[in-house]
Amino acid sequence: MSEFRRDPIVGDWVIIAPERARRPQDYEQLALRTNGAACPFCEGNEQYTPPEIYAVRRSGSSPNGPGWLVRVVPNRFPALRVEHELTARPYAMFDLLGGVGAHEVIIETPEHVRSFASLPEQQIRQIVRVYHQRLVDLAQDTRLAQAVIFKNVGHAAGASLRHSHSQLIATPFVPPRLARELRGAEHYYRDRGRCVYCDIAYEEAQRDERVVVDLPQILAYCPYASRFPFEVWLQPKEHTSHFEDSGEVLLEELATALKIVLRKLDTVLEEPAFNFVLHSGPFRTGPLAHYHWHLEIMPRLSGVAGFELGSDVFINPVPPETAAAFLREAEIEVVANGIHHHRRNLPADALGLPRGPQHNS
Amino acid sequence: MSEFRRDPIVGDWVIIAPERARRPQDYEQLALRTNGAACPFCEGNEQYTPPEIYAVRRSGSSPNGPGWLVRVVPNRFPALRVEHELTARPYAMFDLLGGVGAHEVIIETPEHVRSFASLPEQQIRQIVRVYHQRLVDLAQDTRLAQAVIFKNVGHAAGASLRHSHSQLIATPFVPPRLARELRGAEHYYRDRGRCVYCDIAYEEAQRDERVVVDLPQILAYCPYASRFPFEVWLQPKEHTSHFEDSGEVLLEELATALKIVLRKLDTVLEEPAFNFVLHSGPFRTGPLAHYHWHLEIMPRLSGVAGFELGSDVFINPVPPETAAAFLREAEIEVVANGIHHHRRNLPADALGLPRGPQHNS
Repeated sequence: MSEFRRDPIVGDWVIIAPERARRPQDYEQLALRTNGAACPFCEGNEQYTPPEIYAVRRSGSSPNGPGWLVRVVPNRFPALRVEHELTARPYAMFDLLGGVGAHEVIIETPEHVRSFASLPEQQIRQIVRVYHQRLVDLAQDTRLAQAVIFKNVGHAAGASLRHSHSQLIATPFVPPRLARELRGAEHYYRDRGRCVYCDIAYEEAQRDERVVVDLPQILAYCPYASRFPFEVWLQPKEHTSHFEDSGEVLLEELATALKIVLRKLDTVLEEPAFNFVLHSGPFRTGPLAHYHWHLEIMPRLSGVAGFELGSDVFINPVPPETAAAFLREAEIEVVANGIHHHRRNLPADALGLPRGPQHNS
Repeated sequence: MSEFRRDPIVGDWVIIAPERARRPQDYEQLALRTNGAACPFCEGNEQYTPPEIYAVRRSGSSPNGPGWLVRVVPNRFPALRVEHELTARPYAMFDLLGGVGAHEVIIETPEHVRSFASLPEQQIRQIVRVYHQRLVDLAQDTRLAQAVIFKNVGHAAGASLRHSHSQLIATPFVPPRLARELRGAEHYYRDRGRCVYCDIAYEEAQRDERVVVDLPQILAYCPYASRFPFEVWLQPKEHTSHFEDSGEVLLEELATALKIVLRKLDTVLEEPAFNFVLHSGPFRTGPLAHYHWHLEIMPRLSGVAGFELGSDVFINPVPPETAAAFLREAEIEVVANGIHHHRRNLPADALGLPRGPQHNS
């Protein structure tokens, strides 16, 4: 059973999850070593995952059998479990909390496809709708304060299974990074009466230096203080604090923007390892005037080394203006069944960027 | 020229350092590919580094020539430069600061040795004294607020050069992680009138569950809320906020403790990639009642994946009590010229831990 432990100095919570140490021996290595035949995420292999929580299914198909388009299951080696009790207690001078929460895997396609960006736009829309559904559903559990949806692609980004999937972790407290965003955004709002994310979108659209994709409802840009080379943030242009409150058209446009941006990253950086994280307002606060949901894409060309871990200051060798220029220029061709891209000049070479994790001496 | 950019939401500073994009092509790859003959850190190759800032030299030897024991040079691809001006200005709605600071490399041995822990204890004492000297020296520069000394060992920890070295980055502000430690420690002190690090050392020594090495002046333990498997912190038992204020005997004991702990980690985890960071009080504050210098060792068996980056919550599959038990048990034999260890059972296998970066799905 896992538990949350609180650092007595900075106050951050850590998840101690002994169950997860077992992972590499069985399940995960199995899938890594196979070409998909024994992949637990492939259609027909439903028995290799825990029973499904939710699925988009063709009519007439049965739960935990074939016939699905997107499937959500508990992580087989969960960091947290919904079955745990929310026990909080002191432990000597320390704080301890039972590992209650949710740790879900969103299997994004029944086929053994590795690249999220290569999925048909229609499929990405389904996935985005499933993200939405999971947040709406988990927000009902009053023990949970917040959920983070995230994606790990490639070894350098912490991925182990190749089959396209993302994950969701819901916690009984607002995670520190979200809490800092909320505090900072609230502070900005108190000073100026405006949402900081709305101001950023306005500023970026005006300057046009760091914009990557500008759709009617979604803006994608390289943030001014990008921590990672080619970091891209996507956000609704209109103020919306909670992903759960997003309408169908906005979700569809997010799917389009995600596909375009990830395709452009694949073109420019030759299919880099990357993470993305979806940040939305905490559950059950109602709409917030100061917060704004957004999705952060972090290509993992650079390793996170000692200075970053020890200072929380990131060193980024690529100015976001340069990254945005390359991404804007990257030609991708939208065709009926997805997007095909033409390779052009490879800025990884032009910029002197390594492929694979970067070194930090 | 590099610059600091401030994230307008959470307020953290990022270093945008275009010069560092050039690294892999020349200098670094050179050293990685060679067996030491062309290593810029080896004795006799002093011309491949910028002129030295400081060195421990044999009497009669000249700067930038052979005859040194420990040598400090500016990083050839610096994230920050002391020559930069401390200009702060607004940039639209954002905050910008010139990339003033120091980025130094501490070359820890004239020989092409990879393993810090395999250096003779006498040499590690010299290195620790050089850390001390650099902090004392840089604290004189009133533009600088703080310095972090750190070490990257192995690819997964962001290292590029094999020759044993550590680095130092000094910034014109207190880095966010240090600022959070200082705030948290001050808060604790205001509530209780005691230093939180002193309380932790007392608590850990009493319980003896997470202690790794207990020397007269230095305690090494796996912290209660370890973010990484086998994370170990070293701190003076007696309250000392600044590394600069540490006496000779304390520094010598730190060298001994570092050697023992790193040797034990090498034994238990088979020479893992790791980082360490030295956290000391900000420059020129005078002694602080609430802060306490310490050194954090972070083995990098786990990658930092999307959830960690997006939430600042770390998932650690190895309870620190388990890690401490393995480390305490690990047999290392201290002999005259350094420490030789016997391999015993390998807990990496027993715990189901992978070797190399861990996967996070």
